[in-house]
Amino acid sequence: MTTVTAIDSEFDRAIALAPDGAGGYHGELGSGWQIGGGINGGLLLAVAANALRQALPGHPDPLSISCYYLTTSHPGPLTVRTEIVRRGRSVSTATASLYQEDATGTPVERLRVLASYGELAALGGEVHTLAEPPQLPPVEQCIGTEHAPREFLTEAALLQRFDLRLDPATVGWAVGQPSRTGRIQGWFKLADGREPDPLALLLVADALPPVTFDLGLPGWAPTVELTVHLRAVPAPGWLRVSHATRNLAGGHFEEDCEIWDSAGRLVAQSRQLARAPRAIA
Amino acid sequence: MTTVTAIDSEFDRAIALAPDGAGGYHGELGSGWQIGGGINGGLLLAVAANALRQALPGHPDPLSISCYYLTTSHPGPLTVRTEIVRRGRSVSTATASLYQEDATGTPVERLRVLASYGELAALGGEVHTLAEPPQLPPVEQCIGTEHAPREFLTEAALLQRFDLRLDPATVGWAVGQPSRTGRIQGWFKLADGREPDPLALLLVADALPPVTFDLGLPGWAPTVELTVHLRAVPAPGWLRVSHATRNLAGGHFEEDCEIWDSAGRLVAQSRQLARAPRAIA
Repeated sequence: MTTVTAIDSEFDRAIALAPDGAGGYHGELGSGWQIGGGINGGLLLAVAANALRQALPGHPDPLSISCYYLTTSHPGPLTVRTEIVRRGRSVSTATASLYQEDATGTPVERLRVLASYGELAALGGEVHTLAEPPQLPPVEQCIGTEHAPREFLTEAALLQRFDLRLDPATVGWAVGQPSRTGRIQGWFKLADGREPDPLALLLVADALPPVTFDLGLPGWAPTVELTVHLRAVPAPGWLRVSHATRNLAGGHFEEDCEIWDSAGRLVAQSRQLARAPRAIA
Repeated sequence: MTTVTAIDSEFDRAIALAPDGAGGYHGELGSGWQIGGGINGGLLLAVAANALRQALPGHPDPLSISCYYLTTSHPGPLTVRTEIVRRGRSVSTATASLYQEDATGTPVERLRVLASYGELAALGGEVHTLAEPPQLPPVEQCIGTEHAPREFLTEAALLQRFDLRLDPATVGWAVGQPSRTGRIQGWFKLADGREPDPLALLLVADALPPVTFDLGLPGWAPTVELTVHLRAVPAPGWLRVSHATRNLAGGHFEEDCEIWDSAGRLVAQSRQLARAPRAIA
């Protein structure tokens, strides 16, 4: 699917990498993926994941992928270096490092990834789920991100990549009335109609506004760590995405994300630890 | 605290490491930490975390730590090697690899860890939590693990390290009547009375029986990946621990763990992706 859509999908162009034959993969971060002065963490993870996919032939999909963010990424060239930790029959484990050069040409590591890859389509089909998909109003009754607070929209070129329709019940923060239930949910599509696949789900896991908006904290929330578990290949169509947090303490909070596909399957679960924005007076 | 208890605590003896001055840390896995033919994954994580603590002076506590399990660990000598990814002012990121030698003396990597360390006690004290501690009957009304299924007790030397009292409402599986709600919870203490600290919480995050017991799947559930977020230094006394799963699909399930201390604080959250046991006929 990736190769087919690569021709015209801005997501596939954004994660495209050229192997240099010496273990490095070279790409370019576009300004269209900026949010709050940096490049979106989900997009960065998808870039690193694409390098790992190329480094692990026969094991195309991350089953579990953990990313630790080190320094802020900016538009411009990047290099990903991978190391295979263990090559297995059905599962392989590897690491990836994403670098950008500083003004002096010195490579600066932006993030480090540790992941296990396999083939989602080859996994057993049985499902015993107790999870319920987020209850959302129809797409046409949900609201676009143009209603987000100014702090969020400034430098939010990223939002133009998405067709994101948020549940009105979870966007009170946009009009100064956060529900304080620690939840933001909505419908997600890539703006250019590119259908979801496992690498795109890594982007979606970090695509919604920080759930702290709903706690009355509209500032930025830099991610320390993000782990995504991919559970199934997503069906085409709208995705339902929910972000929830239950515990803000010690200046950090967790953000749990669930991604459900149009066939009603929980296709990905993620959790991130992020630094809490300062409370506003 | 660690140094004080190190004299007489079997946990501190189990994670003790001797640096070789060449970047390696040498230890020994005791047979008392075996479960189902291998060494408990939480204990292994605590060993690797102890090496990282020594490699990162001034940043004693894991804030977020992710472990990918590669091969089965056995009683005997081990070596941990660490790599500092980024040394920061308040947070540092590093990796650790735990090795054991095979019959030919070749080092075999057992697990790979990626983690960010800091100082929990130095983090802000404010708490805005929506999480509720697990509701448990008093300790004396909960039941010890001697009631677990035979499959679980065989080779479960690990259980002698714990004083684990499970909520009767979540141990129906012990008598062939799993609640199928995907939850197991109870009270936890180290059997020798050693009080909890951040490294001990890594053990606790993987100490309960697999939550799949409660789904009627009494077999083993090997961990693919385990990430623990440490949120506060735990107070002395009993810990309340809950394991829950919501989605078993594609032969894998997630296990979410919460650890609450005696002061009523959510001190750690973890999630693991594990391979599901085969359903019994």
